[in-house]
Amino acid sequence: MKAEIVSTGTELLLGETLNTSAHFLTGKLSSLGIEVDYHTTVGDDPERLEQVLRQAIGRTDLLVTTGGLGPTADDLTKELVAKVLNIKMELDPYSLEQIKQFFGRRKAPMPLSNEKQAYFPRASKILPNPIGTAPGAIIEKNGKTVVILPGPPFEMTPMFDNYVWPALQQKIEPDTERMNERVLKVFGMGESAIEEVLGDLMSLPNLSMALLAKRAEMHIRLVARSSKMTFEKAEEVLNRAEEGIRQRLGNKVFGRDQETMIGIVGQLLKNKQLTIATAESCTGGLLGAALTQEPGSSGFYLGGVVSYSNSLKQGLLGVSEKNLMKYGAVSEEVAKEMAEGIRLKAGSDLAISTTGIAGPDGGSDQKPVGLVYVGLATPEGVQAEKIQLYGERESVRQLTVQAAMNKVRVHMLAYERRLQLGDG
Amino acid sequence: MKAEIVSTGTELLLGETLNTSAHFLTGKLSSLGIEVDYHTTVGDDPERLEQVLRQAIGRTDLLVTTGGLGPTADDLTKELVAKVLNIKMELDPYSLEQIKQFFGRRKAPMPLSNEKQAYFPRASKILPNPIGTAPGAIIEKNGKTVVILPGPPFEMTPMFDNYVWPALQQKIEPDTERMNERVLKVFGMGESAIEEVLGDLMSLPNLSMALLAKRAEMHIRLVARSSKMTFEKAEEVLNRAEEGIRQRLGNKVFGRDQETMIGIVGQLLKNKQLTIATAESCTGGLLGAALTQEPGSSGFYLGGVVSYSNSLKQGLLGVSEKNLMKYGAVSEEVAKEMAEGIRLKAGSDLAISTTGIAGPDGGSDQKPVGLVYVGLATPEGVQAEKIQLYGERESVRQLTVQAAMNKVRVHMLAYERRLQLGDG
Repeated sequence: MKAEIVSTGTELLLGETLNTSAHFLTGKLSSLGIEVDYHTTVGDDPERLEQVLRQAIGRTDLLVTTGGLGPTADDLTKELVAKVLNIKMELDPYSLEQIKQFFGRRKAPMPLSNEKQAYFPRASKILPNPIGTAPGAIIEKNGKTVVILPGPPFEMTPMFDNYVWPALQQKIEPDTERMNERVLKVFGMGESAIEEVLGDLMSLPNLSMALLAKRAEMHIRLVARSSKMTFEKAEEVLNRAEEGIRQRLGNKVFGRDQETMIGIVGQLLKNKQLTIATAESCTGGLLGAALTQEPGSSGFYLGGVVSYSNSLKQGLLGVSEKNLMKYGAVSEEVAKEMAEGIRLKAGSDLAISTTGIAGPDGGSDQKPVGLVYVGLATPEGVQAEKIQLYGERESVRQLTVQAAMNKVRVHMLAYERRLQLGDG
Repeated sequence: MKAEIVSTGTELLLGETLNTSAHFLTGKLSSLGIEVDYHTTVGDDPERLEQVLRQAIGRTDLLVTTGGLGPTADDLTKELVAKVLNIKMELDPYSLEQIKQFFGRRKAPMPLSNEKQAYFPRASKILPNPIGTAPGAIIEKNGKTVVILPGPPFEMTPMFDNYVWPALQQKIEPDTERMNERVLKVFGMGESAIEEVLGDLMSLPNLSMALLAKRAEMHIRLVARSSKMTFEKAEEVLNRAEEGIRQRLGNKVFGRDQETMIGIVGQLLKNKQLTIATAESCTGGLLGAALTQEPGSSGFYLGGVVSYSNSLKQGLLGVSEKNLMKYGAVSEEVAKEMAEGIRLKAGSDLAISTTGIAGPDGGSDQKPVGLVYVGLATPEGVQAEKIQLYGERESVRQLTVQAAMNKVRVHMLAYERRLQLGDG
């Protein structure tokens, strides 16, 4: 089944309101195995809206509209859908009663204009709206289905979940194609490098693979279509593909599906009951903020120092004046001293530090904007890594956080492996 | 001028990615007085994309596309625009050089597939992309303008601001209707309270006023349409309205237009050459991260401590064990000691502290989730404010940052006033 979403509402075309409804609907329809081919957003202009509806109904099986169900004269979605499908509008007395009661609860008489909201294309299945005054509708004609939903997301989403979802589930034949999907998340490799390494895996039968660049991550999206397969068969295809990818990319793959870099690092620390502390310069607190994002972070994160000034680097972390003078604040030596310093002060198992030039100013030939050192102190010693990042200030800061988290992750994986070898 | 936005990318039709780019572009085009009639989102299917591009170019003056500029075979936006406009594709040697340098900086050879990104419809104005490998383009033919932008928002938005915005400004005839717009930003008052206080101001002639609720702020959006007025007349209308609003709301108005709470606080500190330090518990580093967001923050921000554990509160900030035992970590007393402690350690003029229960766990009847204390230490002494916030963990943390910043702002305004009175 192919679907199309039409959002109407002039506010969507003024940049005031973000169209989260199209996003919500697309996710829901996709997970039912319904392919969404187009979204179109159009204002409350009757001619343009009619044209968009006509085109959509012409080329799709399922049209879902949002918006244009209000009481005012420019709210015309139902009327225009009826026109395009050549169906008469009819009053639904039950809906009228509901709308009157809505105003009654607010101790106000129903304005005459709201009567309009109780009219629907004949033979519509009407979808009640307990939150607002605009009911929705499902209309079937000539093998086409049109679902009409109100614009405000807090009215639209419960109506979809309560009425449209079950109706669509019923509609879908049991042998309809459904997608089994998996996302693998990669740190430290670019799009073309991944493509090169995966090569032949990219075109396995029954599987589609797509790469998606995120700010600091690459996502590999695997889809197995289960039309001819059972759900279990499709999962098997995904398992085999995941295994193949992990074999080639190794620990560059840091997580899958809903997993995040931060979540993974927290989990690794919790599992091994290790604690961590932070010493931040260029990230200014972002590293601590990231580590404390998830509930329960006090189980592994002790805290840290934001040593933005050199005097705090010396005063709170014990960084030596000698190294600050000789190598500068952005240096391997200072990154190491920062990590060691906070590890000592906090009494943590691990400590991570960042020092770098976030920009846009402060760069030089020797130390360009984006130059960052990430230090890691452990019971075995301290090391620091030099990284060259690119982009705007906030981007450099965020990428530094990701690089630091990844450093902890890679260390923890090696630590786990050593423990296992020790056990075996 | 009429415009249309086409977003391409299969990820947008799977419900994975929210289409923030269309929202960004619509806002920008609207504020230039360019009317956006349609958004269309379509996947990486060549036939459907071609059809959408053909329709858009047929009915609009300005088409803006995002996405489909990657190195892979299904990235086809430029190629299909060229086909629809009947223009040949040509290699741009400069762009090729830039892409090679992009990989060079990463010490990697350019994969052959990336060469594709240096081809453009002949006579395009090419828009450099310092962040990624996909340059954009502006193409003019038969009175139509097509702007081609990359998909990732962090590449697209700076490209739009740096190259497309000035080009469009030049294009717009001087007598086009333009909206003169101003946004006043308010902290610490809700929508209905503002409506009540502003009352009659809400319906001034030639002016429309709308309230927009943001996470921790209310925005008052003023629009004067300058079709029948000169630009200057419209600005006068806005000035009068702003004056009236500021008279009634006083220092609840913290900024306007692009100004942010953080930016304002930084400016106030810089102007008076005062320094600040932070001691954070529930915000975990977000306060430091906010203060260091803007370049030049090292001029006023010395750094701070993220004292997530009680031992760091004692060890690095000198919080007394007695108060921790007697009142608990989330208390007025501890907030005060944290602020005083970091002020002493950092040697700053001001210091701000946060301690609270971000949730979702850890709340009790006496200390529910969302209870936060914000401390402020100054040369005149130390005080702490109790705040009850609502919402999810991340929301409580962000709102705490805003409340802390506002506390510094209000203190600085009072300080400025005292200085002025002293001077006069």
